[in-house]
Amino acid sequence: MKNFMNQVDSVLEESLDGFAAAHSDIVVLGEDYEFVRRKEIKQGKVALISGGGAGHEPLHAGFVGYGMLDAACPGQIFTSPTPNQMMNAANAVDGGAGVLFIVKNYAGDMMNFQMAAEILDQENATVIVNDDVAVENSTHTTGRRGVAGTLIVERILGAAAERGDSLLELKKLGDAVNKATASMAVALSSCTVPAAGKPTFQISSTDMEIGVGIHGEPGRRRVPLASADEIALELTKAVLDDLALKPGQEVILLVNGFGGTPLLELYLMVNAAHKVLAGAGVSVARHLTGSYVTSLEMAGCSITVCVADSEMLALWDAPVHTAALRWGM
Amino acid sequence: MKNFMNQVDSVLEESLDGFAAAHSDIVVLGEDYEFVRRKEIKQGKVALISGGGAGHEPLHAGFVGYGMLDAACPGQIFTSPTPNQMMNAANAVDGGAGVLFIVKNYAGDMMNFQMAAEILDQENATVIVNDDVAVENSTHTTGRRGVAGTLIVERILGAAAERGDSLLELKKLGDAVNKATASMAVALSSCTVPAAGKPTFQISSTDMEIGVGIHGEPGRRRVPLASADEIALELTKAVLDDLALKPGQEVILLVNGFGGTPLLELYLMVNAAHKVLAGAGVSVARHLTGSYVTSLEMAGCSITVCVADSEMLALWDAPVHTAALRWGM
Repeated sequence: MKNFMNQVDSVLEESLDGFAAAHSDIVVLGEDYEFVRRKEIKQGKVALISGGGAGHEPLHAGFVGYGMLDAACPGQIFTSPTPNQMMNAANAVDGGAGVLFIVKNYAGDMMNFQMAAEILDQENATVIVNDDVAVENSTHTTGRRGVAGTLIVERILGAAAERGDSLLELKKLGDAVNKATASMAVALSSCTVPAAGKPTFQISSTDMEIGVGIHGEPGRRRVPLASADEIALELTKAVLDDLALKPGQEVILLVNGFGGTPLLELYLMVNAAHKVLAGAGVSVARHLTGSYVTSLEMAGCSITVCVADSEMLALWDAPVHTAALRWGM
Repeated sequence: MKNFMNQVDSVLEESLDGFAAAHSDIVVLGEDYEFVRRKEIKQGKVALISGGGAGHEPLHAGFVGYGMLDAACPGQIFTSPTPNQMMNAANAVDGGAGVLFIVKNYAGDMMNFQMAAEILDQENATVIVNDDVAVENSTHTTGRRGVAGTLIVERILGAAAERGDSLLELKKLGDAVNKATASMAVALSSCTVPAAGKPTFQISSTDMEIGVGIHGEPGRRRVPLASADEIALELTKAVLDDLALKPGQEVILLVNGFGGTPLLELYLMVNAAHKVLAGAGVSVARHLTGSYVTSLEMAGCSITVCVADSEMLALWDAPVHTAALRWGM
């Protein structure tokens, strides 16, 4: 394992200091590294808060800013943040219109966000993201895992919150976006958590893990590496089967890298996914391609499809200004 | 070697097809994959053209669009594009005000861009980027190599071309930006070119290559992995020594990943570089952090500093709309 680091136990904190310095026009770091929040708090707007273990950067801190999250609570690498972090974040970004938590369906995150939601004085609601179609229940999950589709939920809800939607409207829209979003992933290599010092899992130089989770947890099966077209077919088909699209519906396509896969290959996967989508008569209205929901330096990618009506597309297109996503301003 | 690919000899073409599909609002792919050009050609504007071997994505195609390049010519992985590609690109994006080539100082690129410049009917000029302070002359270079600073040159010139600067003005500004920009890099791992099938270089699990080039070519020395602070000190000091800043000058800081280094670690390096810069009394006016000038899946990073006057900063901030950089629109 070779990383840029000083001390294994200060990796997250030093990284957050760099992040806050690099994006001081957008974000402020909370005390004791408990959360990253927007610099400008907007009164009368529902506050959107997400979070989860570090190691998935730019998720979630990279999505804090206008048109997306109000705060993100980072846990240590692949470790849930605490209920205290969420509560302190909620108090810091409270705009008087309630708090919406956006939570990836992982056992630790679910438990801690639920605890925060119960204790919190402010009116609040929670949108659970469970877009991963690979497996029902898994190493760290009851039910489906929440993965790259979280970005789409955060973006669309962020735009809706900005236009003034109420807590109830946002909860309803968030559940609808989650239901319309499905993902599946493949890994070609493991990642190594610095504190563990060894790869999360072992994989031979000729195999791939189909249906892998964003912490390297196992998915559907371990098989020899297939061609890009074969992989795209399996991932995209699984996603389309889950979504049961109707003819004429438009989609947002997110081809997401896990950190160790070059952009050159991600765009090749976009091309491969397009062939499958075209074969199924699906029209891609919007693309996002890059390493947005990562697993440290793991090589691999996921394919996410979100069935988007015209309102969702308009919200997707609305101005956003975060460290990792920015358009329209 | 494990990659997402179908055939080793069609990796670039399939990737370009995916890129063009994903960004069809911004770019058009030239015939025979010779270039990626802007969708909208602006008459009366100097055309900015860059290019080089693939494997450095998002450089250069990811920087084609409003406020940056008019066209990019991709060679095969780590292989220069041909003079024909550059000439056909120049003809495709000609706005009647001349053509400016932006060329990284590598022998193959230099020779082929020079040949194109000589044959081309249009009035043209060339800005050579040679920001890498690691070595004078190298495996593929006479003089210093052109590396991540190329992004800064392309961005600032792109904005200046958009406001209507003449070919002569752009050439002068480009040379000034190049002179004001310095970079140095470190690699923790090699990358593997798919067509070669084996790592470009061998490096032990405990060493790093200081002063590495963006094709994995050797730099200053091979030494045991040091702490992030020690690495940042060596890279940043080399860059600052080269630039000889005067007190009160402002800089743009680009911490660039080579593809295989997680964003978590890049921000940690931002923090480490900040300590060195603060110690030297240097004020960072703008940041860019991410994997922008890559070397396939190589783990490592470079630190680039550009000494920017108020005009350069205003051009940096001006609207840009490309696949990889976007703000202000």
